[in-house]
Amino acid sequence: MTTRERIIDTALELFNASGTRAVTTNHIAAAMGISPGNLYYHFRNKEAIIRAIFARMHEVGTREYLAINAERGPGTAATMAETFVMIQRFNWRYRFFKRELTALVMADPLLGEQFVASHRANLAMVDAALERSITQGFLVPLAEPARRLLAEQVWMMTLFWLNYLEIGGEEVNDETLQRGIDHLQLLLGNYLTDAAKQALANS
Amino acid sequence: MTTRERIIDTALELFNASGTRAVTTNHIAAAMGISPGNLYYHFRNKEAIIRAIFARMHEVGTREYLAINAERGPGTAATMAETFVMIQRFNWRYRFFKRELTALVMADPLLGEQFVASHRANLAMVDAALERSITQGFLVPLAEPARRLLAEQVWMMTLFWLNYLEIGGEEVNDETLQRGIDHLQLLLGNYLTDAAKQALANS
Repeated sequence: MTTRERIIDTALELFNASGTRAVTTNHIAAAMGISPGNLYYHFRNKEAIIRAIFARMHEVGTREYLAINAERGPGTAATMAETFVMIQRFNWRYRFFKRELTALVMADPLLGEQFVASHRANLAMVDAALERSITQGFLVPLAEPARRLLAEQVWMMTLFWLNYLEIGGEEVNDETLQRGIDHLQLLLGNYLTDAAKQALANS
Repeated sequence: MTTRERIIDTALELFNASGTRAVTTNHIAAAMGISPGNLYYHFRNKEAIIRAIFARMHEVGTREYLAINAERGPGTAATMAETFVMIQRFNWRYRFFKRELTALVMADPLLGEQFVASHRANLAMVDAALERSITQGFLVPLAEPARRLLAEQVWMMTLFWLNYLEIGGEEVNDETLQRGIDHLQLLLGNYLTDAAKQALANS
């Protein structure tokens, strides 16, 4: 593992444990047993480390999403449920970011741009998945405004479920992750075709 | 206005502008032209001020919700749309809290307890509104798990819509507030009774 990657891993661990406010670049260097100068060689400041963590998060998330798609087929119910769990586990691994999302994005315009780009790409990915589900006869046809709203609802649920559990004092465990999947199923359930309902009942 | 209320108002304004991190009790006292000792007479620390702001937010929100209910009748479509807009405007007034919600709640266990109590009361209020809508023949009957999930979806949309707009780089304006209402309508639309659909078409 390169020093750059070790910095990202160590920072992620410290941020998750104590929040970005309490952790300085000196803390990160000390936890790794390297000099602050060595850390600054790789990252100019804490904000740059946070942006690198976010870039990795987006990259890994997209890769894992495409892997599930390749295995389970695009636009199926199994793909959606598996993707949701993957993203929640993933959000948990990067949980400091979810906890401080709005404040971080507002404090660092560069991170804000990075987030907006990722956000739009993710929303477009959900919308494309709904479109494929419709083409494949898994979901009933939906006119443009409704399909885009539905995509936004699926994405919002994915984006905020972990925050919702944490602020409500609920643990992140198999049961609460399952409730997240139940939410997706309720969101999409009303748009399933009869053929899809039958296929789900037989699965 | 009492000094206590002025402290809350001033702190709210400064927190909204700069975030709770950048604002100290000394800044708040200076902005009001009072001594730090006078401020400490009313609040032991910044956390106590944040808790007082949250208590006021919950109190005003509940009062305004009940007023809309009294005027528009409980469980109707008009009540739901008007409540949503009221809560979004209200969230905007207390926007620092929305922006830092997860971090604040995790950093202060007392605020956490206060939030969880308010959160459960709000969720129960949404669920009770759905139940009334069903009793009044506005929504089709829904079995327990589905109704509770639907209530949670309505509440999540209400809770996070402002954050969602801000992190996505969208302005909070009439158009984006209307999209929030469109979301609620899509969430509930599939459960409207034929009588309700007819009433909405004629309204």
